[in-house]
Amino acid sequence: MKLSARNVLSGKVIALTKGATTAHVKIEIAAGAIVTASITNEAVDELGLAVGRKASAVIKASDVMVGVD
Amino acid sequence: MKLSARNVLSGKVIALTKGATTAHVKIEIAAGAIVTASITNEAVDELGLAVGRKASAVIKASDVMVGVD
Amino acid sequence: MKLSARNVLSGKVIALTKGATTAHVKIEIAAGAIVTASITNEAVDELGLAVGRKASAVIKASDVMVGVD
Amino acid sequence: MKLSARNVLSGKVIALTKGATTAHVKIEIAAGAIVTASITNEAVDELGLAVGRKASAVIKASDVMVGVD
Amino acid sequence: MKLSARNVLSGKVIALTKGATTAHVKIEIAAGAIVTASITNEAVDELGLAVGRKASAVIKASDVMVGVD
Amino acid sequence: MKLSARNVLSGKVIALTKGATTAHVKIEIAAGAIVTASITNEAVDELGLAVGRKASAVIKASDVMVGVD
Repeated sequence: MKLSARNVLSGKVIALTKGATTAHVKIEIAAGAIVTASITNEAVDELGLAVGRKASAVIKASDVMVGVD
Repeated sequence: MKLSARNVLSGKVIALTKGATTAHVKIEIAAGAIVTASITNEAVDELGLAVGRKASAVIKASDVMVGVD
Repeated sequence: MKLSARNVLSGKVIALTKGATTAHVKIEIAAGAIVTASITNEAVDELGLAVGRKASAVIKASDVMVGVD
Repeated sequence: MKLSARNVLSGKVIALTKGATTAHVKIEIAAGAIVTASITNEAVDELGLAVGRKASAVIKASDVMVGVD
Repeated sequence: MKLSARNVLSGKVIALTKGATTAHVKIEIAAGAIVTASITNEAVDELGLAVGRKASAVIKASDVMVGVD
Repeated sequence: MKLSARNVLSGKVIALTKGATTAHVKIEIAAGAIVTASITNEAVDELGLAVGRKASAVIKASDVMVGVD
């Protein structure tokens, strides 16, 4: 499926923590650049996510804020 | 201000388009990795965003999905 | 790409309005059940969306609220 | 209360799982079309949600993505 | 309709700007505390929003970040 | 960091509940006006959040809905 989401950042899963219903997945998308996703445990199982696996962080443009120092 | 948002990806603004009320800002966060943000025109003005300016894409973990091929 | 998003509701585009930067797309996912998406014009063009085309509404579980009467 | 959210899909709760702080609620909005919501346990209690109860999935248009095959 | 959203902040509309498809609505929820909402023009019309009208800002808990100085 | 998010409501933490991976933080932003945030436990620890501490609720305008009675 091709998605309207503007942001698809590909990388590799470097950490995965499952809670009671919600899991946190860390994806390294470039050297030193890590994106954390909070998704359902159900999705982790269905996608077969595991540390070391290739995966992308997918983000809708309207969910991205901008910050400046 | 220090934020709870797990994802702060720093880079440089490479494109900026203002619409009637909503603007699209593209930030290059690593070589070839571009994040698009959809924010208010008001925020663009207030932050003084412009092409070439350093800026970060800030994303809450619960707004990040994961995709696998 | 297989996505962590729990909700993929397939249907057909029944209306499409482009604004200055943001478009509204209406997808009929069942008889009389219509989902409205607010996405970038850029995505509309890239996906080749048009009235009558098959498309799915994709929604992350953490973006769904529940209401009762 | 009348809401600005464009998407109110009415149906019936068919599954409900509470975690430590976050619950997952599945609502069947049409034959075979199920929407999963991730909400607080607090909201589940306050709304008196239970399997078999009528409920609606409520989604803001800016949280809906579009996918095409 | 009773909603799972944890945050319903009631106040009065103090500014309203319609764009091509997206409107910005400012609601004063306490003396000096203003919340800006970005919603569809369609919702503005349907709710009959106008400056001076009582209205609430409604926000899902998973869309709230926390910041500290 | 200066943020594009339109809504920064400052107050004090009045309740904090950590779950397995997700925490709920309640911030009183005006007398009787409480905002609940659902954030990662990791963020709670990193920001040193605790009851009684000053903190702000930060919300992107596109995540705010409007309701009228």
